[in-house]
Amino acid sequence: MTKRGEFDLIAQSLAPLSDAAHGLGLTDDAALFAPQPGHTAVLSTDTLVAGVHFLLEDSPGDIARKALRVNLSDIAAMGAVPRGYLLNLSLSPEVTDDWMDSFVAGLAADQAVFGVTLFGGDTVRTPGPLTVSVTAIGEVRVGRAITRSGAHVGDTIFVTGTIGDAAAGLRLLTGKDVLGTADAAFVCDRYRVPQPRTTIGPRLVGLAHAAIDVSDGLIADLNHICDTSSVGATVRARDVPLSFAGRDAIKRGLFTLSDAVTGGDDYELLFCARPEAGDALKRLVSSFDVPITAIGEITAGQGVSLIDDDGNAIALERTGHNHF
Amino acid sequence: MTKRGEFDLIAQSLAPLSDAAHGLGLTDDAALFAPQPGHTAVLSTDTLVAGVHFLLEDSPGDIARKALRVNLSDIAAMGAVPRGYLLNLSLSPEVTDDWMDSFVAGLAADQAVFGVTLFGGDTVRTPGPLTVSVTAIGEVRVGRAITRSGAHVGDTIFVTGTIGDAAAGLRLLTGKDVLGTADAAFVCDRYRVPQPRTTIGPRLVGLAHAAIDVSDGLIADLNHICDTSSVGATVRARDVPLSFAGRDAIKRGLFTLSDAVTGGDDYELLFCARPEAGDALKRLVSSFDVPITAIGEITAGQGVSLIDDDGNAIALERTGHNHF
Repeated sequence: MTKRGEFDLIAQSLAPLSDAAHGLGLTDDAALFAPQPGHTAVLSTDTLVAGVHFLLEDSPGDIARKALRVNLSDIAAMGAVPRGYLLNLSLSPEVTDDWMDSFVAGLAADQAVFGVTLFGGDTVRTPGPLTVSVTAIGEVRVGRAITRSGAHVGDTIFVTGTIGDAAAGLRLLTGKDVLGTADAAFVCDRYRVPQPRTTIGPRLVGLAHAAIDVSDGLIADLNHICDTSSVGATVRARDVPLSFAGRDAIKRGLFTLSDAVTGGDDYELLFCARPEAGDALKRLVSSFDVPITAIGEITAGQGVSLIDDDGNAIALERTGHNHF
Repeated sequence: MTKRGEFDLIAQSLAPLSDAAHGLGLTDDAALFAPQPGHTAVLSTDTLVAGVHFLLEDSPGDIARKALRVNLSDIAAMGAVPRGYLLNLSLSPEVTDDWMDSFVAGLAADQAVFGVTLFGGDTVRTPGPLTVSVTAIGEVRVGRAITRSGAHVGDTIFVTGTIGDAAAGLRLLTGKDVLGTADAAFVCDRYRVPQPRTTIGPRLVGLAHAAIDVSDGLIADLNHICDTSSVGATVRARDVPLSFAGRDAIKRGLFTLSDAVTGGDDYELLFCARPEAGDALKRLVSSFDVPITAIGEITAGQGVSLIDDDGNAIALERTGHNHF
C-alpha cells in the first residue's frame, strides 16, 4: 500500500461504520455526542497491544471485538448505555488489506449487537506491535452513574455469569492443555470474545451501590471496590459461580478455584447491593439469559477474604491477573 | 520498577491531574462528562508515535504538551471550548520515573493554560516505541459546531497566526540548518509546542462557515475543506502570513513559500466566512495577540490554486505534509 493512499483506503473502509450525526462521515476534526437531556456522557478507554493483551494469532475480527467489548464492559459497570466509540489504530508492518477488512467486519458485526457506531478516531503506522485503543462512549442520568466507591457494610456482593472461564481459556491457548474439546472451545471463546453485560448494567442503576467489571480477577476487582469504598469483603468459595467447563477442570485437578478467582478477563459485573435487592435481581435475571449470584458480604475493615465452608480463609497464590 | 507497583506509581503521579467530578479520582471504570444544557460534547483523538510524530530527543514535557495541544487545536477548529482529556500511554522500555515526572509536569502546566483536566485513560507497557494518544473533550452549542463542509462560493479564506514556522523548525531539528540562532529557537519552538487557537475558535461560531486546523499543511487542509464542501479555492501567495523568521529564511533562499504552505504542523485555524466578516474579525483580533489574515477566496469548481501577483498558478512540489 502506498503511504497516503493507504490512509485513504483505511478511511474508506471505516466510513461505513460511522453515522453522519456523530462521526460527520469521519471527514472532520472531531466527533459530536450530545447526551439526552439530563444525562451525562460516560467515557472509557483501553489500549490493547499485540503480544501483551491479545495473541498475535487471534483473528482480526476477534481482536476488534475484544477491543470494543472490554470498553463496553466498563460502560456497563457504570450503569450506562453505550452509544458509540472512537478507534485509535497503530498499524504494524504485518497488517495487510485482508487483515484490515476482517478487523472492520468484526467491528461491524459488534456494532449491530451492541447498538453503537464509530464516532471517530485516528490511524497511524508504527514500527512496533499492532496497538488498538478504543474509547467507548455511553450515557447515564446525571448523578446516577454506579461507581466503585458506594459499597456499604452489610451489602451483599453479586456477580453476573460465571468466573474463571477466560483464565482457563488463556491457559489452553498458551499451551497449558487442561480440558476436553467441547469445553476447550467454550473457554477459549470466553477468553477471546468477552460478553459485556451491557443490558444488565443499566438495569442496576438504583439497585447497586457500587460496581466494577471483572478484568483483573474477581478478588482483585473486589479489592478495588473495597479500597475505594473503605470497606472489606468476604467471599464464600462455594458460591463463586463456575461454568460446567470450569467445574469439570477443577474436579479433574487441572485448574483451581484460586486460578478462577484471580485469573481475570471475565468481563462479568461484580456489584454490591442491599441483601433485599436479591428479589429485584431475581426478577431481572428472568428477563436475561445470564445468572446473577450472591457470593459474599461487604464487611467493616479492609481487604478481601475468600472463605471455605467452615468460614476459614483460603490462601491465594496471587490476588489478581497482571497483564505483564 | 516492579510490574504492578509501576502502574500504582503511574496512577499516583497522574491522579493530581484529574478532578473528582469527571475523573472520579481515576479509580473508576470510566469518566463522566455532562455538557452544559443545550451543548454537545466534541471529541478529538490523535495518536503520536515516537520516531514518527515526534522526535525521541524531545523533552518529555514537550511531548506531553504537543499530544494535548494538537487535539485542543481540533476542538478549537470545531468552535468548541475544551474541558478535559483522556490519556492512553503505551510506555516503551526506555521510559524512566524521571521521564514520567517530566511528562506529567508538562501536562500539569498545560492544564493551567487551557483550563482542562485529566478525565481518565489507560497506561500499558509496549515492547515497541512510546505511543501517546490523547482524546480531547470539549463542548459547543448543539447545531453550532463549525465543520469542514460549510464553505460557500465567494467566501473569503482566513488563517490565524503565521504559516510555515513549524516546517522550518522541523528542517532545523532534522539537521537541515536554515536559520540564525534567534530565528532558529523561534521556529523550533513552533514545531515542538503548537499554540492551539482555543480562545479564537469558539469566537468563530456564527462567523465561520467552515473551519479546519492546519496540521497537514495549508494547501492540503484547504483541500480537505474544498473536498468536503464541494468547492474550489484560490490562495494569493503574497497574502500567506509569514513570521519574520519565515520571511528571512525565504529571502535568503534557504526555504520556499512552497515549503511553508505544504509543511504542516502549523496548528493555525483556517476558515471560510463571508467577505463582510472581515470587520467583525478585526474587532476580534484586537482582543487577541494573534493576526487573522485574508488569504484567498472560495471558488466554484474543485481543488486549490496558489497564485502569484499576476494571477498565475504557482506549481507546488507536493500538496501536504505526510508523517510517513
